[in-house]
Amino acid sequence: MQYPEPIAKLIDSFMKLPGIGPKTAVRLAFFAVDMNEGDVMDFARALVDVKRKLVYCSVCQNISDHDPCTICDDSSRDHSTICVVQDPKDVVALEKMRDYRGLYHVLHGVISPMDGIGPEDIKVAELIRRLEDENVKEIILATNPTVEGEATAMYISRLVKPIGIKTSRIAHGLPVGGDLEYADEVTLSKALEGRREL
Amino acid sequence: MQYPEPIAKLIDSFMKLPGIGPKTAVRLAFFAVDMNEGDVMDFARALVDVKRKLVYCSVCQNISDHDPCTICDDSSRDHSTICVVQDPKDVVALEKMRDYRGLYHVLHGVISPMDGIGPEDIKVAELIRRLEDENVKEIILATNPTVEGEATAMYISRLVKPIGIKTSRIAHGLPVGGDLEYADEVTLSKALEGRREL
Repeated sequence: MQYPEPIAKLIDSFMKLPGIGPKTAVRLAFFAVDMNEGDVMDFARALVDVKRKLVYCSVCQNISDHDPCTICDDSSRDHSTICVVQDPKDVVALEKMRDYRGLYHVLHGVISPMDGIGPEDIKVAELIRRLEDENVKEIILATNPTVEGEATAMYISRLVKPIGIKTSRIAHGLPVGGDLEYADEVTLSKALEGRREL
Repeated sequence: MQYPEPIAKLIDSFMKLPGIGPKTAVRLAFFAVDMNEGDVMDFARALVDVKRKLVYCSVCQNISDHDPCTICDDSSRDHSTICVVQDPKDVVALEKMRDYRGLYHVLHGVISPMDGIGPEDIKVAELIRRLEDENVKEIILATNPTVEGEATAMYISRLVKPIGIKTSRIAHGLPVGGDLEYADEVTLSKALEGRREL
């Protein structure tokens, strides 16, 4: 005997999610069976909506329920600065800081020749087009401090500099609250390299 | 800025599942955004179906997509033996063994006075009713070897014995492949108690 078909299908769906193996999927599916009907229906509707209602903002390429997104549409923000990030989640992380008032540009990936991802596979062309249209003064490159992130930042800065726009890269160094003893060599060398006079 | 509303709702839904905290919920929700549309729709449909299509088998109380369920409806099975379990998942575990050919009865819980769960909150009355109607010869009590599981097994056996039906309890002892060195005292004492002559 297998699980009844509706449960088996739900287990399969849960197993497609990252980090969820067969045992967890079974546990989650049976939990859903016992959940109250309203919550399960909300869950199902949220899944449908996430596919049907989300769009990419035509300006910054971030996922949003409006086009343009609330950030691009906000006239109180500084439209002369664009922070370039890899992923929509990075926008949320930066917005949590409540300190940055400029705009964003979401690349949806980084250049990674090993994985066959070139500049044409991420939203670089859309960024360059924005620079031509809008009155942009600075590009902040906030891709992750990985090999691919650095390469992507370097690639974009080489494209942008000739247009005469200031490009900057976010600082790398010891995280606040971090411990020098446990920092890796690359981070330490970046921290030394980026030292500032007091 | 918060997440766009459709994502925020999906994050909330994921967070209602057991063992999924805020960070995992965000990761799963963004994963769903990138999943192919068919898979997401299947997921949503599976959630709806698990609420709409599942019924409790009127005989054994197991969850099923038919009533009576495929096990109760199978005339090739031994209808004179009923194995009493706590949970629909236990039926699946026992069926995997492919050794047991009798029927089941799912209690949907155990008696637990500490949590305010009495015999009337689980499917004991339905079991007793079955014993009157059907030609049952043996009841196998397969509740979990916990305090509540033992108490429930004891309670049911006291109800069933006067009717003149054989009741048995599954064996407790060292699991196959287990190590005596790491077994807890209660398991060891159960293993000694249940020793059989060779």
